[in-house]
Formats: sequence, structure tokens, C-alpha cells
Amino acid sequence: MLDKSCNTNGQCKKIDNGQTREQKPWNVEPSTIGNNCINPIRLTIEKLFSKSVTEKSIISLAIGDPTLYGNLNPSQESIDALVKVVQQGKHNGYSPSMGLQTARQAIADFISVDGAKFTSDDIFICSGCASSLETSITALADPFKGQNILIPKPGFGAYKTLAVTINVKVKSYDLIPEKNWEADLNQLESQIDDKTTAIVVNNPSNPCGANYSKQHLQRILDIASRHRVPIIADEIYEKLVYPGKKFVSLASMETDVPILVCSGLSKSLLAPGWRQGWIAVCDRAGVMTEIRRILESLGQRINGSNSLVQGAIPEILQNTPQSFYDDAAAKLEKQAKVVYDRLSHVKGLTPYMPEAALYLVVKFDLEKFPDLQNGLEITKQLLNEESVFCLPGECFEMTGFIRIVITSPCDVLAEACDRIAKFAERHYVE
Amino acid sequence: MLDKSCNTNGQCKKIDNGQTREQKPWNVEPSTIGNNCINPIRLTIEKLFSKSVTEKSIISLAIGDPTLYGNLNPSQESIDALVKVVQQGKHNGYSPSMGLQTARQAIADFISVDGAKFTSDDIFICSGCASSLETSITALADPFKGQNILIPKPGFGAYKTLAVTINVKVKSYDLIPEKNWEADLNQLESQIDDKTTAIVVNNPSNPCGANYSKQHLQRILDIASRHRVPIIADEIYEKLVYPGKKFVSLASMETDVPILVCSGLSKSLLAPGWRQGWIAVCDRAGVMTEIRRILESLGQRINGSNSLVQGAIPEILQNTPQSFYDDAAAKLEKQAKVVYDRLSHVKGLTPYMPEAALYLVVKFDLEKFPDLQNGLEITKQLLNEESVFCLPGECFEMTGFIRIVITSPCDVLAEACDRIAKFAERHYVE
Repeated sequence: MLDKSCNTNGQCKKIDNGQTREQKPWNVEPSTIGNNCINPIRLTIEKLFSKSVTEKSIISLAIGDPTLYGNLNPSQESIDALVKVVQQGKHNGYSPSMGLQTARQAIADFISVDGAKFTSDDIFICSGCASSLETSITALADPFKGQNILIPKPGFGAYKTLAVTINVKVKSYDLIPEKNWEADLNQLESQIDDKTTAIVVNNPSNPCGANYSKQHLQRILDIASRHRVPIIADEIYEKLVYPGKKFVSLASMETDVPILVCSGLSKSLLAPGWRQGWIAVCDRAGVMTEIRRILESLGQRINGSNSLVQGAIPEILQNTPQSFYDDAAAKLEKQAKVVYDRLSHVKGLTPYMPEAALYLVVKFDLEKFPDLQNGLEITKQLLNEESVFCLPGECFEMTGFIRIVITSPCDVLAEACDRIAKFAERHYVE
Repeated sequence: MLDKSCNTNGQCKKIDNGQTREQKPWNVEPSTIGNNCINPIRLTIEKLFSKSVTEKSIISLAIGDPTLYGNLNPSQESIDALVKVVQQGKHNGYSPSMGLQTARQAIADFISVDGAKFTSDDIFICSGCASSLETSITALADPFKGQNILIPKPGFGAYKTLAVTINVKVKSYDLIPEKNWEADLNQLESQIDDKTTAIVVNNPSNPCGANYSKQHLQRILDIASRHRVPIIADEIYEKLVYPGKKFVSLASMETDVPILVCSGLSKSLLAPGWRQGWIAVCDRAGVMTEIRRILESLGQRINGSNSLVQGAIPEILQNTPQSFYDDAAAKLEKQAKVVYDRLSHVKGLTPYMPEAALYLVVKFDLEKFPDLQNGLEITKQLLNEESVFCLPGECFEMTGFIRIVITSPCDVLAEACDRIAKFAERHYVE
């Protein structure tokens, strides 16, 4: 539809009775909210991919989508349930903004554990976990009162994007690589001020793949309780904890801290495109009545998630066997180990073996790579020289790191690691 | 999860070494944005439905969802396309934030007409048309600069909800019942000020069912062009124009006004639960480059709509025959006529025959109904006395009116109208 008759500022000349006259520009300046909405992952992907690359076929290990290579798929039970719903034609209409009652009940049953029982009233279905996070942050944090949220560093870029989009401030708390990416508790506590309205806790974590112990979670809860600050718990990777490790939900701990647990089908069921997320309200102190009302109101902005998948959720969650989740986690661990083992022996690199999720971070000892100044430079050169595409740590507010998505099959990962090793050897200076 | 150990303000007593001490309240006050987000339709439905009703079975003519009674269904071609996509398993992953390229191309082809050709680059897929509207308003209007948008009165409540949620101001322009609900052009123009960043034009319209002529649309465009204000065109009912009438898209007119056309599958395909909407950018002046960037950024907040339906969109749009849309429109007209004919002869009532969409508004001559002060009172009493549930005009910023959803089968509508007639006769005072 482009037919440039004006300049890019919208300054137009109009011929009127043979007279050319200047018109004022169109009122199409982007809004502050629009301009604030910057997704570092997307920006990086676009910036890097615009560069020319070598003749080698590109291996992309950049996007946290388990479905890309066909080796990780939703359960057959889910597909069957969804086909049935589509054919029956009973879920073509709007769902309630909170989600279908039957789906909310099924989710409550699915996530309830001893010590943390949820009812359907506690569940708010959203259009993917991104929407759960957006809704939770928007409900709790107020830009018009100068409020802030605490987010992990390194951490998933969406927390910052979603907050600053609506002018909510963010403050970071550090994760410590040497302590399995646990939070630096003293520093976390020092960041809390009167305007802090939520602490975002991501466990298991992106990009680090940490899986926190009960003890560590308890310490975070103690800090939140002391300062009366609620928690937004991003637990989207809860089912992808590797064999032998145990996931502990913040909601299952003995605590009075109000918690909005954000999760969904995207990662557990290996179906991010289905856009089914939820917020589970854990409120032992009974102080979230108003927040529940707001979560429902905010859901009405876009009228909820896809109804067909909602209609299938009871069968999806009831029929998918535990072995499905176990198999996926085992496969992910095996793939992570391929990367870990191959990169462990490369001089100047330190890979961090994850305990969960889809990612593995690798530290480049920048002193040994004098021509590579930061993660952005590393990933750019790696793409140019070896056609391997990873995200720079800068997308997660860490420098000198790259993030490798470990969802590809083992042979692809092995080939990618061999290229990364060659790349590192070429740039390494003793 | 409720276990009240604090009072509702979150004031708690904590036992610490046998000492009871007061703790400060939890920082869980709802945000301004959350509190601003008020959906009048939802509020009304909840308020009215909480009242006790008579023993008659309730006929709900309140919700604009064509699928409720099973007489209006998506095309079989759509169901087949969707089942195929689910079974093939190729669309379980994330889609790009703008939407799948193949789906955007299919939408561009579907909506292009002579004089208005779209390419896939012009199409931004959103999670339903509500999300298209939210994204468009958020991109164009800036709360931090005190900007406002113009919205029709009467009109769909979501425009106001979405704007005031983010603190964008709204100003209304009047629609004239006696002129087939055309806009009062002088009054519309008088409402535009330096802070006006969009005019929302809803055609065909909710709740009035108007279908504007080319001439009327041209006059609105002339005003927008004179003041350099872009238009958000909500054309979600474009395919539901009754037999013999012709729909004209604003984008198909000869104009330099930048237009964001919001539409989707929800109403055309009778599948609102599928949550597939789009924004089509019509920008003959070439001034929307930045706005396009912002639309894409804002889409990244929730990572787009359900990928399965996106994967099916090419087949859905290519295979669904024109007769499907024609049949739906003919059925809707027939149903609207049942209501119109039955209520035309009831003293004190003036039904307005729609030319499109799912609704028919009825005016109550309030002078003749002294015990009914406004639309809210009418719908409340109507529900109490006759178990017929309609929305009050107040949900659309009009008083003395009710809105009847005409998607139910003819016999249901006939029964409902007989009850409404009885109700009106009972309350009528000469």
C-alpha cells in the first residue's frame, strides 16, 4: 500500500486549485508505550541475521522453541484431544476472560501438590505465559506511582520489556554463576525499596538452566515476607527438570508471601505456538482479592486465549502420561551434555551444565579473546565465520557469554559445537 | 489457596519469640492501569445476572457470540483445514510476532479489492480483533502526552476500555439515529483538537448495525485528511452485510489518510474463540513506517496468536466459498427481521432495523414508561420479569435503549420478542 507522495515526516504538498500549499504533518508519531516496547532478543536476531554469512549451512541455536527440529513434539494425547475438540465444534465461541471453567479446574488439579492445593478460582488462563507475565506485572506495578519490580540478572529479557513498555521501572538482582546461579540474597534485599511491588523469580531459569533448592527458595521467600513484597514466579520450565533433580514450586513452600505463579503449556507440552498460559494465585495471607479482580479485568482487554485449546486442556492434562515429560527432560539433558562435554575442553570457554530447561550458557574468558569485546561481538563473528547462530549474553544482561539453545538433535549440536570450538581456537590468544 | 491469617488490608500479626508484633501491609495495591481497565459489558452482565430471576427459562440475547445456539458455525472448509494442521504437527512452534508469512499473504489476498491492494508486509496478525484494536490504540495514542482518540457514540465499549486503561483520553462523536446512525460530521470535526491522534470508525457498526455509504465514508475521510489525523477502522463485521447491501472498506476509498484496518476471523467466519485478528496498514501517504515498527514491537509482548489457526488460514480463506458468507448474512437478516417485525408494533418501542452485523437496538420512549428510568433499569426489570437478558444502551453510551443480539434461531427470538412486548405493554402508560 506504499505510494510515497509525502516525505518520511509526513510533510505533504497538496495541489489545491493549482496552488501548491504545505500541509501540517500527519499525527502518526509512535506513542511512548510503543517506543518503550523493545525486545532485545528480537532486535539482536534481526541485527545479526542481516549480516552476510559464509557458505556453510546455518545452525540456529538462538530461539527457545523446542519444536523447530521435529525431535521434540507435543504428546499424541494432546493432538488427539485437540482434533476432537475442533471436529466437535463446541468451542468456537468466546471463552470467559478468566478461561473455561473446565480448563481452569484441570489446570488447578494438574499443578496442585501437597501443601499447595489450587481451585479453579485461583487460575487465570492467558494467551501464553508471556501474556501471564504481562498481566501479572501490569496488575501489580504502577508506572503512575513510580513503582519498580526486581528482576534477575542474568534473566529473560521479557521481564524488562514488559515493565518498561508501560513505564514501570526495573531493578536487578544478581545471580551467582559459581553458586549454580542462585540469587545474591544480600544484594537482592538491598535492591528492595518502598516502591518495589514485585520480585520476579524465574525457576527453572532462562538462560542459566538453574533449578533452585528448597533452602534457596525459602531464603528468597523470607526476604519477600520481611519486606511485604509479592512474588511473580515464572515457572514455565517446571516440567523440564532433568532426571534425578526435583522441581520445587514457590507455591508449595510454607509461606505467607502472595505469589502469582506464571506457567503454561508452551514448554511443558512442547507447544509454544498454542499460546496457553496461566496465572495461579497463591495467597495464603488472603490479601489478593483486589488483584484477582484486576487479573480478570486485564484479561478482558483481548478476550482470553484460543478456545479450542482451552476446550482440549482437560484431556490434554489428564491423558498425557508422566513418561512424556520424563522423556522430554531426559532428551534435553542428553542434548545439553553433548554441548557441555564438547565445550568443556575448549581453551578459554566455560560451559555451565544446566539442571533444567532448554538452554546452556557459555562464558568466554574475554582476556584470552582480545579481538572479541563482548557477547554481541562473539555471536556476530561466530555467525559470520561458522554460520552458528546463538544469542549474546547481552540479551540477558550478562556480558562475555553466549546462550546456546539445546533443543536440536545431538548430531546438530555436535556439529555446532565443533564449529564453536574451531572458532574459539582461532581467536584464542595465550 | 485462601487461608486468612491477615485481615483484608493485609495487616498481619506475627508471633516472634512469643511477642506479637504488627507488620506493614503487603504491597499488593492494584495498579492504576489495572483499576482503569473497566469493561462495561462485563460489569453489567455480572451485576444483572447476580439478581434472582423468574421461573421462565432465561433467553440471553446479550453476548455478541454467533456460536452460542449452534445455528451459526464456521465453514466446514475451516474445520477441515484446522484438523489437518493439528494432525500434521508443523505449527506447534512460535509464529513470528507479525504472524506467519503464509497467513499474512492469504489475508492480504483476501482483503485486497480494486483500489486497495495489500501485501503481506501490510498485515499484522493479532490475538483476535480486540488485540488488533488494543495494539492500534496503544501504537497511536500517547497517555504521557495527554493525547486522545475520538470514538463513536453509541459505540462498542472496548474502544473506551482499551484507551482509558492506559490513561489515553477519549472524546466522543455522535451517531444520528434518524440518519441510519451516520456520524454527525460537524460535531465530529468540532471534537478534534491538537491532541487527537486517531478517529475510530466502526463500520458495519456495533450496536447499531449501520453500513455506511461511500459518500458518508468520503466525508469522514475528508475531515481526517483536513486535520491530519489517522483512522482506526474497526471493520470486523465486514462480511456480515445483509443481502442487497454492499460493504465499502475505508481502505478502498481514494484517500491519503493513514488507516489501520482492524478485522479478523471472529465474526466473518463465526469463530470468535479462535482469536485471530489482524491489522491491515493502509498508508498511501507513506507516513506509517514508524507505526509499522511499533505494531510489530507491541506484538512481541504476547508473542502473537495461536499458530495452529495461523497455519490453517491460507486454506480457510481460500477454500471457504462466498456462499458461506452470503448464507450467514441472509440468516442474520432473517433473524433481525423477526425481531424488527415483532417489536415494530409495540407501543412505546422503536426498533432500528440493522443493515449488517449481529445486533438490533430498540428505543424505549421513556416518557411512556415512567417506572423505567433508563436502559439499565429496563434490562434489569426485563430479566427479572421475563427472563430475557439484553444489554442496556448504557454499555454503549446511549440511554433509553436496549441492544438485542440477533444470532439466536428465529423461534427463540420470536419467543423473546413476545416476552419483551408483554413487558412493554405492562409498563406502558399513555
